[in-house]
Parts: sequence; structure tokens; C-alpha cells
Amino acid sequence: MRLAVLASGYGSNLQAIIDAIEREEIAGQVQVVISDVEDAYALERAKKHGIENLYINPREYKDREAFDRVIVALLLERQIELVVLAGFMRLLSPFFVRKFRGKIINIHPSLLPAFPGLNGVQKALSYGVRVSGVTVHFVDEGLDTGPIILQDSVPVLDDDTEHTLHERIHRVEHRLYPRAIQLFIEQKLRLEGRRCIHIEG
Amino acid sequence: MRLAVLASGYGSNLQAIIDAIEREEIAGQVQVVISDVEDAYALERAKKHGIENLYINPREYKDREAFDRVIVALLLERQIELVVLAGFMRLLSPFFVRKFRGKIINIHPSLLPAFPGLNGVQKALSYGVRVSGVTVHFVDEGLDTGPIILQDSVPVLDDDTEHTLHERIHRVEHRLYPRAIQLFIEQKLRLEGRRCIHIEG
Repeated sequence: MRLAVLASGYGSNLQAIIDAIEREEIAGQVQVVISDVEDAYALERAKKHGIENLYINPREYKDREAFDRVIVALLLERQIELVVLAGFMRLLSPFFVRKFRGKIINIHPSLLPAFPGLNGVQKALSYGVRVSGVTVHFVDEGLDTGPIILQDSVPVLDDDTEHTLHERIHRVEHRLYPRAIQLFIEQKLRLEGRRCIHIEG
Repeated sequence: MRLAVLASGYGSNLQAIIDAIEREEIAGQVQVVISDVEDAYALERAKKHGIENLYINPREYKDREAFDRVIVALLLERQIELVVLAGFMRLLSPFFVRKFRGKIINIHPSLLPAFPGLNGVQKALSYGVRVSGVTVHFVDEGLDTGPIILQDSVPVLDDDTEHTLHERIHRVEHRLYPRAIQLFIEQKLRLEGRRCIHIEG
């Protein structure tokens, strides 16, 4: 399957995906990595693995949709079948979501619907939860509101800082995201209302 | 420690607490069980264990606070040190919360702040989460908003119904609530902002 990864930052989830592909745990290839941040380390990672990497400057476009139209065109040209958001710090426009309906997934560092949006880890810590976690979900027009593919929990410890909790969450992310991608590739996900059922076998 | 349990229904958490006391896992005694429902089975359970049990009819009082004033008077008379809500289907008035500030705890069948209020299990299932759980928290003036004492997660399975998920959650509740009560009795809980830190040793 032809994958694209959109990332704004360090790209540790991109790396986990590349590694899982090399271990043949994901039956797909990352065709292109696209970033809205020029010096995103995710672009560097792509380069190191011989993957096409593109920076698109959002300031060159008049609005979100104009920016998204460029990205959608790049994805269509490359016949992308699954769009993987990996720390992509922009809400997709309805135009983008429509064009790839059911084919965009995101990972979020909390057990959604708790703590959507930015700084999920910090919000969970400030709220004082004892359990947090990771969510992989389909992207719809809302902010972290799409159907949930996988979740896993992590404990929040008494002496946790945002850093230590984020580290624990990252480790779960790097395990969970490749699994979710492979479930999608194997067509093992079926939506029943908002519930995402995993088909056996 | 002198405990009171407020319950509106079947009282399975009350039973778990009574059992934990008999196993000496809770260093306290339930002095009284109070219900707003005349035929609540929780009252029957109290009777069977020789615990004072009182039905207070909310329809005899002009508003929530008038009703709560009666309950608060009963609790004060009995020198109650911890008020345990166990399926008590009424929001406490600010008056009640003020009178027992930091001495009222509740159990909720979801990982708060997700799915507060009524029907937490059904809401979680409809939303399509893959992980849910149980929360024990201090009661403040809001609806399930107080500082969290303990949480534990449970998986949501593809073939779960509200019944099967609730069963799984109940089993965790019956383990978690006695632990939280004993932490309170041992004075091992310290609030830092909204975070409830567990003191070691």
C-alpha cells in the first residue's frame, strides 16, 4: 500500500513506521513525507531512508484550503492510499478530509475523547488523571473526533512530569501506530456507527 | 473511621466495601446507609449486615438543598468522617459539598473526564473507545469533576454490549473503591492543585 506521512516536527512516529516497514510488520511503503515546517527533522529522516520529502510553506497560501489543495494534489499524483498524520500540527480542511474520507489517520497522546487538541499530555497531567494513553483514530472534520481505531493506556505516576509522561506515551505510540496502519492495510477495520470493529482472521 | 454510604440502587459497591471491611482491608465501619429510593436493594444489604439503613424521600423536601440538609444533619449526628457515594443518583448541593469538603468520594464507570454524568458506560460504547475504565474521585460542586484518587482501565471488546462492558467495569470498581477508601483512611492522599498525590509508606 502507498502511504504518505505528514509531519511538522521531530518525526519519531515516522521513524517507528519506517522501522516497522523494514521489519515487514507493515505491508506498505512511505512514498512521500510532507511537512509544513522547513526544518522539521521528519524531512531529514525521510531523506536518510531515500524517501521523497517535501516542504510546503503555508504562508504562500491565502488560507487553509488553498494550502490543503496543494497537498491533496501531491497525494493524488502519487496515488496515495493512506494518509498518516504524525505530529502534523494543522487541522485539515473539510476539502482535504472529503478527498481522502476514511483514508486519513492520526495519533493523539491521550485517551480520546479526553484531552483533545494541543498539549494533550500536559492537559492530562494538570487535570490529575491516574491513567492516560494513546489513541489512533480516523480523521474527520472535527478536532480529534473521528472514529477510534486503537487505544492503549499508560499509568500516570505521582512523580511524573510532562517529559516523563510523554516518554512513556511515545513508547506506546511507536508500538500502536504501526499496528493500526497494518490493520488498515489488511482491511480489518469496519465502522459500525462510530465504533470501529476489528475483523478477525 | 466512621463511614456513611449513600446509594440509590443495587448497592454492589456497598457490598464490596462491607466485604473489604470484613476482610480487614478497610480500617473503618459503615455506620449508616442512606438512600433516596425506598426499595433500593442497598438498604436490604445494610439490614443483612446489621447496619443502620435510612430512606429519605426527596419528594418531601422543597428542593435539593432542603433534602441535603436532612442528610447532612444525619451524617453530623453520627460523626461521619467519610461520605461514600455508591450509585447515588443525585448531584449533591453546594451546601452538602461545603459541609463535607474533601470528605466525600464517588465512583464513576469511565475514565474521567471522559463520559461524565449518567450512562457513562453506554456513552463510552457509543463513542467507540477501545479503552474505558473506572474513576474514584473526590466530590466537588461539579458533575464528576473533582480531583481523581484512583483510576484503572478496562479494554472495550469488539463484541461488547453495555451489559458485558458494565460487568467488566463493575469487577474493577469492586477492587478499586475499597483501595481508595483505605488510602483516604491512612491519610495517604495529598492534593497538589487538582492532582491527588499518593504518599508512600
